Parts: sequence; structure tokens; C-alpha cells
Amino acid sequence: MATDSKAAVILLSGGLDSATTLAIAKDQGYACHAISFDYGQKQRVELDAAAQLAQDMGAASHRTVRVDLGVFGGSALTDAAMNVPKDRSDDDIAHGIPVTYVPARNTVFLSYALGLAEVLDAHDIFIGVNAVDYSGYPDCRPEFVEAFQNLANLATKAGVEGETITVHAPLISLTKPQIIERGLTLGVDYAKTHTCYDPTPEGRPCGRCDACLLRIAAFKSLGMTDPALQ
Amino acid sequence: MATDSKAAVILLSGGLDSATTLAIAKDQGYACHAISFDYGQKQRVELDAAAQLAQDMGAASHRTVRVDLGVFGGSALTDAAMNVPKDRSDDDIAHGIPVTYVPARNTVFLSYALGLAEVLDAHDIFIGVNAVDYSGYPDCRPEFVEAFQNLANLATKAGVEGETITVHAPLISLTKPQIIERGLTLGVDYAKTHTCYDPTPEGRPCGRCDACLLRIAAFKSLGMTDPALQ
Repeated sequence: MATDSKAAVILLSGGLDSATTLAIAKDQGYACHAISFDYGQKQRVELDAAAQLAQDMGAASHRTVRVDLGVFGGSALTDAAMNVPKDRSDDDIAHGIPVTYVPARNTVFLSYALGLAEVLDAHDIFIGVNAVDYSGYPDCRPEFVEAFQNLANLATKAGVEGETITVHAPLISLTKPQIIERGLTLGVDYAKTHTCYDPTPEGRPCGRCDACLLRIAAFKSLGMTDPALQ
Repeated sequence: MATDSKAAVILLSGGLDSATTLAIAKDQGYACHAISFDYGQKQRVELDAAAQLAQDMGAASHRTVRVDLGVFGGSALTDAAMNVPKDRSDDDIAHGIPVTYVPARNTVFLSYALGLAEVLDAHDIFIGVNAVDYSGYPDCRPEFVEAFQNLANLATKAGVEGETITVHAPLISLTKPQIIERGLTLGVDYAKTHTCYDPTPEGRPCGRCDACLLRIAAFKSLGMTDPALQ
């Protein structure tokens, strides 16, 4: 059991990956300051899930920051005129940059996390990006995370004063089943996570978008039913 | 006279430096899409100046994006409980990270500019940072700009597809008088720019904060009076 209580900033979307990341950071002994983003996403249920997870999982603090990505349009996740694709094959999911890509999303989110880290004097940032199931998002690759860490150390007081900021991406090389196994070991309640790109009006997962399909398949490979669908 | 009309995104604060940067980008033939940030700064007059400059200088578009830096506190520019320092000596201005530093500000702003660039299919971003008079801000140094450009090329569709995003910082090695001379050559009306960290309730520059002092001294060295103070 870790006893260190160094502060860390955790990007928490309310989804399966970020909930697992929070559990990992907590297990490593960090006092976890969670940050979520209201970026005009169509699915509001995600933000409710994030707030609930932060509370249930004992985050030291939780902030929801409103960001204006929607003004740029250009993504099916924020643009009311674009539809989230459904029932795509594994091959379609694995290749190409999908319409659900939000321009510069992780860059913007990590930048806010960096600002919060500066204010809290935290030198560790956790992000649940994953390069295995990343569905073609350029800003989920290890080289992106590394480049942001390099930037963080040049952009901040801490960097100038010779301290080091580390951007942790503990899921980066895990498959979705491996992520779930890790989270289950740490006690993550996946019924409370929300991953779907296009939930029903009642906030239930659609079961057909890329995010749902990846998640359902991962639970199935572990001999389980996705608890969020039960 | 340049005739190319490639799109570029220009960070436009409404101050002397960013107005000059816009003029330089325009002179280089770019269709200039200006972006300003409402980050809870105490001086609202800056945003009005940005909108007016974008219009007067023929920007192709202008957006003001509301960003939530204020929730983090930690800067005299956004935190009502902190005072902007006045009448500091040249030596004080030149050394150390001042209380007017806003955590991760340029990182956040450039991230939004990157998102806008992706949506507009622009491969050029202009920022008016300056390493000579930078008053100790870590995110105004050439190595910061370079690190962001590196990140931008890993974070985006354009980068993945083999195109190159360039972050231009045309003022980075210029002194303030050199910046002003350049802008005057390009027809910038500095009376319309706003630089002060702590303007009067009527929106007039205070003449005593670091930003005013640097600016006043620069015009004086050119044998001029700062037109914003006339």
C-alpha cells in the first residue's frame, strides 16, 4: 500500500479508460486531482459519470472545465450536423482518422491539466490514452504523449526551475481486455463508467458506436457482459 | 505584395506584439484567421481592442474563445485577490517569473489555435511571443515554441498525413523598439492596441505596470510618445 501523497492531475472523462487510470494513479499513492472537460459533447451523461467516479474513487478534488472546442465544429462528437457512425467493422475501426476525432482535443485537455498542475505544484499528470484501440486518433500515440511531456517541461515554472513534469499514460500499450483486468484488480466499478459516443436520451449506451463495440468485445473476451449494458 | 492566400491562424490579444504579428502574417500573404481568448482577465478592454484590430487590419475571420483559466487562480491577471505590481525597475522586470504569469497560458492558447488550424486546414500558426522582453515567462522562449511545433506535428491529422505545421514567432528575437519599427513600416496603428495589465475603469493604460513601462520606454527610445497614452 503506497503512503506517498504527492499531488497528481488526472484527466477523467468518465469513461472506462480514464476511470482505470484514476485507479492506477491512486494505487501508486498520488493524491488525485481529477479534471473533466465540458467541450460541448453531445453526451452529457459522461460528465455526470466523471463527477460520480471522482467522488466514489476518493479523488482529492474534481473540477469540470468548460472549453469551447464546439465553436470550431469539425467533429461528430460536438457538431450537431454530423452523425456518429454505427456498426463499423473491426477493420474500419482500426484504420483511418474517424469523424469522431475532435481537433486538438487531447492537446487542449493536457494544456489545462498542465495549468492545474502548476497551480497545485503537482509534477505528475495522468492521461488514459491508448495506442492499441486508438481508432486512428493521432493524439493517442506514445510519441504525442512524449512530445507533450517535453513541452510541459519547457512551458512551466517547474521546468525552468529544474524540476521535472512527467506525463503518465499507463494504458498506452494495453489492450482493452488488459485495461479492464487491471481495473477490476483495483476495484473499478465499470457499471459506473460511460464510454458511448451517442447514448440514448435516457443516457444508456447505444451499443453500436466504435466506443461501445470495442468495449463490448473486450468484456466478452473476458467472458463477461459489459456491466454498463446490464 | 504577396498574393498567396493560404490560411493562417493568428493569436491576437489586442496588444502591441500580437497586432504587429498580424500585420507581418498579412504582409506575408496569409488569409489571417485571428483568435482571441477571454480567460477571465481583469482587463476586458483588451478583447475589444482585439476585435477592432482584426476588423481594421482585414483579418479573414476573428473568434473570441472563452477559456476557463480563471478557475485555477494563481495569477495577478486573473485572480481578484492578487495585485498587479507597479513601478518595478528594469532589473526587476527582467528577472524571475512574475505574479502576472498565467499558468500554461500560451500552451492552452496554442492548443486552441491548433484545433482551429485543423478545422480550417491551415498549416501555419502565428504567435507574438518575445524572448527579449519576456519578463521571465517560460512559455515565451524559442525552445517552447519549437516544442509546441513538434507537438503540433504529432497531434494532428496533418502531421499524421505527412504535412507540416509551422508555428511562426516572428517577434521572438526582436527588441520592443524593433517590433514597433517593424509594425510602423507595415502601418499598424498602435493607438488602437492595448497592452496594460491593469487599466483604469475607463480602459486607459495605467502607465506603471511592467507591460506599460516596457512599451513606454520602447516608444521613447524611438523618439516617440506611446500613442495609446495620448
